[in-house]
Amino acid sequence: MATDLYDLTVPVFLRGLRNLSAILHKGAAYAAEKGIDPLTLTQARLIADMAPLTAQIQYASDTAKGAMIRIGGLDPVPMADTEQSFADLQERIEKTIAFLESVPRERIDGRDDAVVTLKTPRGDFTFTSRSHVLGFAMPNFYFHVTTAYALLRQAGVPLGKMDYLGGI
Amino acid sequence: MATDLYDLTVPVFLRGLRNLSAILHKGAAYAAEKGIDPLTLTQARLIADMAPLTAQIQYASDTAKGAMIRIGGLDPVPMADTEQSFADLQERIEKTIAFLESVPRERIDGRDDAVVTLKTPRGDFTFTSRSHVLGFAMPNFYFHVTTAYALLRQAGVPLGKMDYLGGI
Repeated sequence: MATDLYDLTVPVFLRGLRNLSAILHKGAAYAAEKGIDPLTLTQARLIADMAPLTAQIQYASDTAKGAMIRIGGLDPVPMADTEQSFADLQERIEKTIAFLESVPRERIDGRDDAVVTLKTPRGDFTFTSRSHVLGFAMPNFYFHVTTAYALLRQAGVPLGKMDYLGGI
Repeated sequence: MATDLYDLTVPVFLRGLRNLSAILHKGAAYAAEKGIDPLTLTQARLIADMAPLTAQIQYASDTAKGAMIRIGGLDPVPMADTEQSFADLQERIEKTIAFLESVPRERIDGRDDAVVTLKTPRGDFTFTSRSHVLGFAMPNFYFHVTTAYALLRQAGVPLGKMDYLGGI
């Protein structure tokens, strides 16, 4: 009856990334329709010292794939963080989705209480897999998807909550 | 080993609301320090046709308490949505936290596959408790907490990701 760790992660990240892809498609269509340089949207920031839209997609991607790699003890899947255009960002999302779809359920389920370490410039954070998902990966993933939505919504792209929630 | 539904919900919402409270305290302190009318912050919007900061807190509160009420078959806990000031918003968060702390684990665990219905102006959405949490309540809750963060961050309040993630 309780929720297996795979069900708590892979399908959740997949839905979020598919919704993010649809949101970015609406951003690109809006730029084309209004004659806006698409790079002004992909480089948009909420404030000068906050990361731009491109980085929000990179961080969402990294959060999802990093969590599964750490939990499953899987090989790293490096991505270069060089995306600039909407097409680049779609490719990043597609690669992240393809990786998530390749994660074997048997490498994830039952790992709930296994220790994982998140290495950051601010030091190492130690979690169980469950607390890593609930206390870091999930909120961090949604932070970056929501911030991407916010940047495009603020720029005038016609978006609504259902674009974010998707597949409800 | 898998995750019980209570652990997937109540402590997650509690941490998010406590972090949201700390973020709002920083917003109030910033307004005081800079001589800004606090209501210009609590009424801030990302764009004219999007809900203001006050509503972001109300929606985060409603999402958390609504999910637990639906899943647990608990009595409604109406809140009037009349908050204007930072103090009002803190009180709303405190009341929501007090309710969540009162939710009995035995009314939640094991309800994973029970059907719940979300009534909205756009029609009714039917879920299992698990899909309601993973596909609606969790992303919607983080959407509103992140948007609250974004509004204050954009207004110049000194906030960083750790204010949002908190208790990592």
